[in-house]
Amino acid sequence: MKILIVGASGTIGKEITKKLAGDHEVVRAGRNGADVQVDLTSVDSIKNMYENVGNVDAVVNASGGANFATVTELTPELNEKGIESKLKGQINLVLLGLNNVRDNGSFTLTTGIMMDDPIRQGASAAMANGGVKAFVKSAAIEMPRGVRINSVSPNAVQESWERLEKFFQGFDPVPASRVALAYKKSVLGAQTGQNYEVY
Amino acid sequence: MKILIVGASGTIGKEITKKLAGDHEVVRAGRNGADVQVDLTSVDSIKNMYENVGNVDAVVNASGGANFATVTELTPELNEKGIESKLKGQINLVLLGLNNVRDNGSFTLTTGIMMDDPIRQGASAAMANGGVKAFVKSAAIEMPRGVRINSVSPNAVQESWERLEKFFQGFDPVPASRVALAYKKSVLGAQTGQNYEVY
Repeated sequence: MKILIVGASGTIGKEITKKLAGDHEVVRAGRNGADVQVDLTSVDSIKNMYENVGNVDAVVNASGGANFATVTELTPELNEKGIESKLKGQINLVLLGLNNVRDNGSFTLTTGIMMDDPIRQGASAAMANGGVKAFVKSAAIEMPRGVRINSVSPNAVQESWERLEKFFQGFDPVPASRVALAYKKSVLGAQTGQNYEVY
Repeated sequence: MKILIVGASGTIGKEITKKLAGDHEVVRAGRNGADVQVDLTSVDSIKNMYENVGNVDAVVNASGGANFATVTELTPELNEKGIESKLKGQINLVLLGLNNVRDNGSFTLTTGIMMDDPIRQGASAAMANGGVKAFVKSAAIEMPRGVRINSVSPNAVQESWERLEKFFQGFDPVPASRVALAYKKSVLGAQTGQNYEVY
C-alpha cells in the first residue's frame, strides 16, 4: 500500500509513520523536509503535492494548527489560522486529492478532544475540530469508488505534556503511539465516517 | 429585553420574531429590508450593525448559507460559501458583538440536522454546522459577565418541504414554529453551551 502522511515529522506523525512504514510504502509530507513539501493553507501547494506524489492508497493528515485565545481575546483575524489550517487545510486535502486516491483507498484526518471536553482558549481549535468531524461523517456517505474517510480525535499526548499541561489541567495524556493506532485502524480497517476518540 | 434577530425575515426568523416580539423589543436584521441591514460574510458589515443597534440583551441568528454539492463536485471554491457565511458569519457575530451584549445576555446560533443525519450534497453545510456546534460548546465555558451561548439545530421545516423533500428523503419535517421555541428557550432560559436539536 502507498500511504501519504502529511505532518509525518510531528509528534503523532512520527508514530504513525513507525506503525505503517514497515509493511507499506510511506511518503512523508510536511512544511519542511520530509519527502514532499506542502503547506495545507495553500490550494496550489496541495495540488502540487498530489502532482508530485501521484496516486496513493491512503492519505493521512496529522497536521494543522489553530490559535489559542480566550473568547474575549479571539478576533476574526486570530480565528483565521484555525479556519485556514486545521479546517480548510484538511478538507481541501480531501477535495483536491479525491482523484489521486485509488479505489477502496482512504483519507484519515485529525480532530481533537477539545471539541468534546472544552478547555480555556480552545474555542477556535474546537470549531475546526467540529467542522472536520461533521464533514467526515457527511462526506463518507457519498465517497466514490469505495473510498473511505475517517478522523482521529486525540487527547493531549504525553510527549507534549510539559508544554500542554497548563492548558489541559486534569486531563490524562495518552502516548502518541496509542493515538497512532487509531490512524492504523482507519487506514487498514474497513470502517468509514468514524471519528476515533483516543481519550 | 432588547433582542437582535439576524435573518428575521426568513422562514424560521419570522417565527422566532412572532414568539418574542410581543413581550420584547425586537430589532430585525438581515440582508434586505428589516430594521438594520447586515451581510454576515463581511466583518465591517457586522461591526456597522452593532454600531447602529447598540447594546442588546440577546443576539439570535437564523441566517447563513452553504452550497449543496456532492463530495465529488465540491471544490475549495464552492466550500467557501459555507465557510464565509454559515460558519465564520455566525462566529464573527459573537466575536464582534460580545461587548454589545449586556451582562447575563445571550447569543443563539443555528446549526442543522445534516451534521447528525447526513444527506447527499450536504457535506459543506454539515462542516459549518459542526464547527458552530463545537465553537458554542467551547466558548460557553469562558464567556464573560454571565453571557450565555447556545445553538439550535433544526430539522428541515415543513414550510420549505416542497423545495427540500428531494434532498431530505425520509425525513419528517417540523413546523418552523416548533423550531422557534428552541430559540425562545435559549434566549429566555438559563442554559449555556447547548445545541438544541429540533428533530
